[in-house]
Amino acid sequence: MKKFINDPAHLVDELLEGYVLANPDLVRLEDDHIVVNRKLDTAHRVTIVTLGGAGHEPCACGYVGNGMVDAFVVGEIFVAPNTSPVVKAIRMADRGQGVLLVVLNHAADMLSGHQAVQECRALGIDVNMVIVQDDISNAPRNHAEDRRGLVGCVPLYKIAGAAAAAGKDLSEVTNIAQRFADQMATLVVGIYGAVHPVTQNLLAEFTDDDMEIGMGQHGEEGGGHQKMRSADETAVLMLGALLRDLHVQTGEKLLLVLDGLGATTLMELFIVYRKCISYLNEKNITITANMIGELLTVQEAAGFQMMIARMDDELLQYWNAPCCTAYYTKS
Amino acid sequence: MKKFINDPAHLVDELLEGYVLANPDLVRLEDDHIVVNRKLDTAHRVTIVTLGGAGHEPCACGYVGNGMVDAFVVGEIFVAPNTSPVVKAIRMADRGQGVLLVVLNHAADMLSGHQAVQECRALGIDVNMVIVQDDISNAPRNHAEDRRGLVGCVPLYKIAGAAAAAGKDLSEVTNIAQRFADQMATLVVGIYGAVHPVTQNLLAEFTDDDMEIGMGQHGEEGGGHQKMRSADETAVLMLGALLRDLHVQTGEKLLLVLDGLGATTLMELFIVYRKCISYLNEKNITITANMIGELLTVQEAAGFQMMIARMDDELLQYWNAPCCTAYYTKS
Repeated sequence: MKKFINDPAHLVDELLEGYVLANPDLVRLEDDHIVVNRKLDTAHRVTIVTLGGAGHEPCACGYVGNGMVDAFVVGEIFVAPNTSPVVKAIRMADRGQGVLLVVLNHAADMLSGHQAVQECRALGIDVNMVIVQDDISNAPRNHAEDRRGLVGCVPLYKIAGAAAAAGKDLSEVTNIAQRFADQMATLVVGIYGAVHPVTQNLLAEFTDDDMEIGMGQHGEEGGGHQKMRSADETAVLMLGALLRDLHVQTGEKLLLVLDGLGATTLMELFIVYRKCISYLNEKNITITANMIGELLTVQEAAGFQMMIARMDDELLQYWNAPCCTAYYTKS
Repeated sequence: MKKFINDPAHLVDELLEGYVLANPDLVRLEDDHIVVNRKLDTAHRVTIVTLGGAGHEPCACGYVGNGMVDAFVVGEIFVAPNTSPVVKAIRMADRGQGVLLVVLNHAADMLSGHQAVQECRALGIDVNMVIVQDDISNAPRNHAEDRRGLVGCVPLYKIAGAAAAAGKDLSEVTNIAQRFADQMATLVVGIYGAVHPVTQNLLAEFTDDDMEIGMGQHGEEGGGHQKMRSADETAVLMLGALLRDLHVQTGEKLLLVLDGLGATTLMELFIVYRKCISYLNEKNITITANMIGELLTVQEAAGFQMMIARMDDELLQYWNAPCCTAYYTKS
C-alpha cells in the first residue's frame, strides 16, 4: 500500500485537523471528532446532525456548513462513532428548536444513533431520526429496514438542511426528509477494491475482467460478480433496476446522482450520465436535478454509485435553495 | 484496463455530451468540441478562452461559466486541439472588448495557441495570451519558457475571470493574469501511473515502494524516482522546494492548492495540508486562500500537485469574487 499518510494511529485526527485548517470560515472541530458548522451559535432553527466512519471524504465533513449539516460525528476509518459523542453533538447542536439526526443504515451507526436519541430525549431534547436505507441490492423495498445506507445521504442532507434553513419546525423538517428518503434508490458498481489505510486489507477483490453491481460501499458482497460491461450497458442495467424498484412512471421527474468511489474518473461518469439521459428520454422521464462527482468515496476503489430519487415541486425548491459548504455550494 | 467507456473512438464526444447534458444552465456545446458559457451572448466584457486535451476532468470544461472561463476548446485525450477550433472559439467569444487566451505550456498547445492568436489578430480581433508555466521541476525560474503548465491554470482562470467580470479592459485583465502567473510555482508527485483510456498504455511505471516528485502531469519523467515517503515528509520536501523557487519570505501571504491526480484521496490531501500549515506557521507565512480536491486529473493516477502563489490584496479580491461553474462556485 502506498498512501500519503503518517502514523495510522493518528490518521483520523490528522485528516480532520487538516480539513478544519483548510476551512476555518465554515467549520470548527470539537473534541471527540465532531465537525461543527461555524455559524451554529447564531442559528435560530432546527439543526441537522449526522454520524459515520471516516475514510469516505468529502462525506460528510465536506457538507458541514450553511444549508446542509450542522454537526458531523466522525468515527474511525469505516467505523461508526460511539453513542457518547453523538449525544454530545446533539446537545451542542440543539438551538432550542430540536435536532434531526440522519443515520445511514449500518449496524453500528444505527446502534449509536438509536441510543443517542434515547439519551437526548431523556434529557428533554426534541430529536428525531431519519434513516438512509437506499441500497436496493440487499433487500426488497418492503423490507427497507434491511437496506444499507449509501450516497442518498448527501442529497438528503441538502433537502433537510434547506427545510431547516427555511424555518420549518422539527416535525416538518422530519417529514420532508423522510418523504425524500422514502423516494430514493441506489446501486453501487465496483470494479477495483480499495486498501484499508490502517489495516492494509484489500476491501474487495476483482479479476481483470469483472465487475459487481450491488456491492456495499465498503466492498461488501452484493449482486455477484459478472463480466465487465461497457459504460452504456452498465448504465442501462443499473438505471433499469432503480426505475423498477421505485416504480417510476412515464412523465415523472427525478434527481440523478453519480458518485465516483475514488479512482473512477469524471470522464467515465459523464459518459454514463449521457446514456442515462438518452435512456430516460425514451421513457419520457425527466432529470430535474443532478450531482456528478466524488461525494461519498471508498478510498481509491473504482466504480460508482448511481442514485435516483423521485422529485416534486417542494423537494425541488429545497434542492435549489442556496447552501455553502466546502464541497457543495449553490448560489 | 477496466473503465466505464464505450467505443474509444467516440470517447471525447460522449464525455462532452454527457457533461453538457448535466449542466444545461451553465454551458452549451458547439461543434469542434468547444464548451461555451451559456451566458456568453449577454456578456459585455473581456472574455476568457482556453484550450487543452481531454482526460483531465473537471479541467477545464468544469470551469466554464460565470466568473471563470467563457470557452474551452477540447482536444482528444491528452492531445491539444488544432489551431482552427481555437480561432473559432476566440471569434465566438469576442464581445467586442477582446479575448484573453490562457495556454498551458506544452508544445502542441502552444503551437495552436500562437497560430490562433496570429490569425485572430489578422482578423482584427484584440486577443492577448497568458502562458501557464508553473512546473518548477524541469527548468529554473529564469528559463520559465521551458516550464510545463500544470494546475496553476485553474486559479489563474479564477483570477482572470474575476478581473474580466469586474469590467477591466483587455490590457488590465492580461496584466493581472500575467502578474498572478509570474507568482506561481507547482510540483507534481506521482506514486501510481494511469492507463490511457484509448491506447491502453500505462503512462508511468512505479514499484511498490517508490514515488516521483517532479513528474509531468501525463506521467513525464521528472525529478527521478525515490523511496516512498510519509505524508509529512513529502509535504515538507515539496513545499520547501516551492518556497525556495518563489523566494517566499517571512510575513508573505500565499494561495495553496492541493490537486489530487485521480486515485489519491481527499483524506490524504487533508493530511498533507495539515503539515503544510504547521510548516508555514513556523516560518510566519500565511495561507490566505486554498483549493483542495481533484481539479486537474490524470485519469486514475495516484499522487497530487502542490501549487503555491504569492497573493496581494488585489489578487485576493479577485480570488474572493463570486463565480458559478459546475466544479467551482463561490457565493
